[in-house]
Amino acid sequence: MEPKPFMIIKDPEVAKLFADKTRVEILHNLRRREMTACQLAKMLGRNVSSISHHLSVLERAGLIKQTRTLVKGNLVERYYRALAWRFIISYTLSEGLIPGSEDISRWNKEICRNAAENLGIFGFEVSKDKIDRIQRLIERYSMLRNRTFEHVISRQKRSAEIRKPAMSLLVSLLTNAFLYRNSEYLRVIREFCEEIGIDEKDD
Amino acid sequence: MEPKPFMIIKDPEVAKLFADKTRVEILHNLRRREMTACQLAKMLGRNVSSISHHLSVLERAGLIKQTRTLVKGNLVERYYRALAWRFIISYTLSEGLIPGSEDISRWNKEICRNAAENLGIFGFEVSKDKIDRIQRLIERYSMLRNRTFEHVISRQKRSAEIRKPAMSLLVSLLTNAFLYRNSEYLRVIREFCEEIGIDEKDD
Repeated sequence: MEPKPFMIIKDPEVAKLFADKTRVEILHNLRRREMTACQLAKMLGRNVSSISHHLSVLERAGLIKQTRTLVKGNLVERYYRALAWRFIISYTLSEGLIPGSEDISRWNKEICRNAAENLGIFGFEVSKDKIDRIQRLIERYSMLRNRTFEHVISRQKRSAEIRKPAMSLLVSLLTNAFLYRNSEYLRVIREFCEEIGIDEKDD
Repeated sequence: MEPKPFMIIKDPEVAKLFADKTRVEILHNLRRREMTACQLAKMLGRNVSSISHHLSVLERAGLIKQTRTLVKGNLVERYYRALAWRFIISYTLSEGLIPGSEDISRWNKEICRNAAENLGIFGFEVSKDKIDRIQRLIERYSMLRNRTFEHVISRQKRSAEIRKPAMSLLVSLLTNAFLYRNSEYLRVIREFCEEIGIDEKDD
């Protein structure tokens, strides 16, 4: 069983599982190969009982699956594999549209704030009084992009014969093609360019 | 030493190292933590001498670095860490603009072909006589996007205080903002929309 390319997380309780670093690392490692609690514990430098607990939480959430069990004497070793290559937190959660997603929405706003405050890294020094406005544009950009991305992913029917880099390329192109038809998106990009001073000559 | 967020690969010989799955897995694992040849060998189910060889190749290419050595009796254990979170093959290589990058450019064209042939996955059934044209549009899209992405990355000065998701968000937004000012990019997107039949009503 190869993991599917994308899984969109729409349940806030499941999304919250991604706040834990160890769980993210477990998912990360189970994309490429099946592994047991014992192997993961060794790799991540944790004890087996803690990893086993994480595995049962992830399995109940539908993010991983048992692939096979190996009986060694009176020891049962269960192998697990992730169900997707990329887990995507739905925009409905990061926008706080679903009850119980308030924390996720707050976290999302913090990220947009942090982005707005750090434009200087890329040589765009913006005055303090502009930060709030830029943050709102970034929030809007992020929402429109994630919503369209989800729309593209959800159109997907089968994926057998396509190669992984070709799949990423198609998803990116289709997302941008749909956004190009979205007047609000074009307005957000234009206003952002104006705020930070990207003009026609830059390329 | 935390890895830097991005490293752009401009040397075709270095880019070719990414064709080997084991090397990619090694780099992948050394992003998050330092590891020894022995630990990597156990994890990837390979023998230590093969992993040691890969490590010395990757070190010579400037992709990983020794972080410390541990002397255990008469055994020296060297720890390694990747120098970046994401390694990006420069568009100058995938476009075959640099001598020695012909293979990389051919591989890139194959990916674009594979993408064009699989639009049906997303519900866009295109007739066979359109595939060549769509492939060329995808190639152009990919080049313009990668070139602009590289341009954004190369503007980057420091990254100390920014959080990882905020960094990704900024790079994505700035790339799209610059592309929005690029008339060839807008033309490619428009023609692609026309070819596959994304019209104004789709959103």
